[in-house]
Amino acid sequence: MKALVFEGRDLHLQDVPIPTPGRHEALIRVLYAGICNTDIEILKGYMNFQGIIGHEFVGVVEKCPYPDLVGKTVVGEINISCGKCEFCLKGMKNHCPNRSVLGIKDKNGAMAEYVTLPIANLHVLPPKISHLEGVFVEPLAAACEILEQIDIQPEYRVLLVGDGKLAQLIAQVLRHHTQNLTVVGKHRNKLKLMEEHGIRTVLLENLDFPPKYFHMVVEATGNPSGLDIALQYIRPRGFLVLKSTYYGEHPFNPAQIVIDELNVIGSRCGPFPRAISLLEHREVMVESLISGIFPLEQWKLAFQKAQAPNALKIILQISE
Amino acid sequence: MKALVFEGRDLHLQDVPIPTPGRHEALIRVLYAGICNTDIEILKGYMNFQGIIGHEFVGVVEKCPYPDLVGKTVVGEINISCGKCEFCLKGMKNHCPNRSVLGIKDKNGAMAEYVTLPIANLHVLPPKISHLEGVFVEPLAAACEILEQIDIQPEYRVLLVGDGKLAQLIAQVLRHHTQNLTVVGKHRNKLKLMEEHGIRTVLLENLDFPPKYFHMVVEATGNPSGLDIALQYIRPRGFLVLKSTYYGEHPFNPAQIVIDELNVIGSRCGPFPRAISLLEHREVMVESLISGIFPLEQWKLAFQKAQAPNALKIILQISE
Repeated sequence: MKALVFEGRDLHLQDVPIPTPGRHEALIRVLYAGICNTDIEILKGYMNFQGIIGHEFVGVVEKCPYPDLVGKTVVGEINISCGKCEFCLKGMKNHCPNRSVLGIKDKNGAMAEYVTLPIANLHVLPPKISHLEGVFVEPLAAACEILEQIDIQPEYRVLLVGDGKLAQLIAQVLRHHTQNLTVVGKHRNKLKLMEEHGIRTVLLENLDFPPKYFHMVVEATGNPSGLDIALQYIRPRGFLVLKSTYYGEHPFNPAQIVIDELNVIGSRCGPFPRAISLLEHREVMVESLISGIFPLEQWKLAFQKAQAPNALKIILQISE
Repeated sequence: MKALVFEGRDLHLQDVPIPTPGRHEALIRVLYAGICNTDIEILKGYMNFQGIIGHEFVGVVEKCPYPDLVGKTVVGEINISCGKCEFCLKGMKNHCPNRSVLGIKDKNGAMAEYVTLPIANLHVLPPKISHLEGVFVEPLAAACEILEQIDIQPEYRVLLVGDGKLAQLIAQVLRHHTQNLTVVGKHRNKLKLMEEHGIRTVLLENLDFPPKYFHMVVEATGNPSGLDIALQYIRPRGFLVLKSTYYGEHPFNPAQIVIDELNVIGSRCGPFPRAISLLEHREVMVESLISGIFPLEQWKLAFQKAQAPNALKIILQISE
């Protein structure tokens, strides 16, 4: 089968064997795979990953020990946990220390004609959600994770820093939970998409709130500059949610965290059922976030586009 | 009066006018002042402070609008807040944006023969607490702040990184709230002091817990290296309490905070009444933490000693 393989240096489209599913796994024919910022960071060295990349996908189950699942359109959770450790037994399977992560850590990903995943990781995509929309379930679940971590109070002033792919989803999730959301970003076209959902936005160059104004700040720019903005506007004892992962170290002084007694909360993967429900009930709209759909063969162009400043989600079409 | 003044470059013992207390302030004759790590950092440029340094003190009220307080031995909270802003009205006066901070920000400190403070900041030292012990109320309150922020569960494994002045107090506070405390430090003599209270300690070079073993890690080394150790041993979704403030920036990548969904909690000043109660009831013992007492005139030697690797609290005796 064809697969996009990262060898530690470059990305190549290669012919590799179709993977053999394990005893509790399904073999899935991939329809679409989304390019995530994490994929871009992996190409820079993030996580030292080598193998087939890609972790946002929609596919059709081809082989599976449960016959009911065969032929179903599915999305898949990306953490493959051991099921036996302290974390798995306490319902924290996304933090299993023995886990592999689809296309990110010790597990071939979904930018390939076929992928395998444990059946426990699969969620059937309801018919109301299109295949293209389904590509957004994984990042939308990550956006929803914030709601699992913070009980947003009505009086909270909330600032979202970032207007990219993930920030768009976070904005649409948060707007259902606060009247006081402001999004700051660098791209007029991206902010405009948020405004269509009634979300208040401001260009970074026009940002003029008083310092330390917001009870809650979500950093989702995908790069280190977002943290500086977040720290400028977070209020003492406020909640600073970090969603960005990137490669490399950056200068930082934790004194403000101490002085202002900030709560800095890392936030990663989230609940798929909640994300699926939001898409199904049209509470989050994703079609306008698609900046391009490319066949797998045009992966080079697709990755170029994905890194363009004005681009949002780029999707690889892998089979029909 | 004699006062230790930092001019932005060097520290000098100078003759300056005795301060005039404001309408709601007391004039306090300082008996003892402790040297804190923050004082050392101020000399490096931390907070860009200029003026009389010192924020840990015991003194006697000389002048005060409330006659009952005159002649009383007192300690003082260091944040001088406006009493009118959103934070003050919500009981977060230590985070008042208009505040000054004794010997740290816009307010002359206590390494002087006299100091002024608002009456609302003063706490009378109970007779069971000696003057020297009273010097520890301010840093002990800071240690107690952790208990206000985190509800330590019985199953939590707790690691304290650091064996210095503040770490000693934190260890003695935490041991009343968990059976599972381990302290890691670099100094045999300092760890030994903790062991006398039944606290389990380990030299950094012998630290061999599995990575990510602890539910809660308190970083109190006073320098950037402590953060690396803390991040190595904090468990996913664990509580990482930061107590250290220091000058300058250091390379850091927040990816682990995101991936492991850590809760990073800054912790600064704490409740004086709780600290006073702990000292009064001998639940925290501080006499063995005093490494030297110097008259104000010997401030140079005192500051040298305070920076020696094996030293703990150095106290300046200012009047009798």
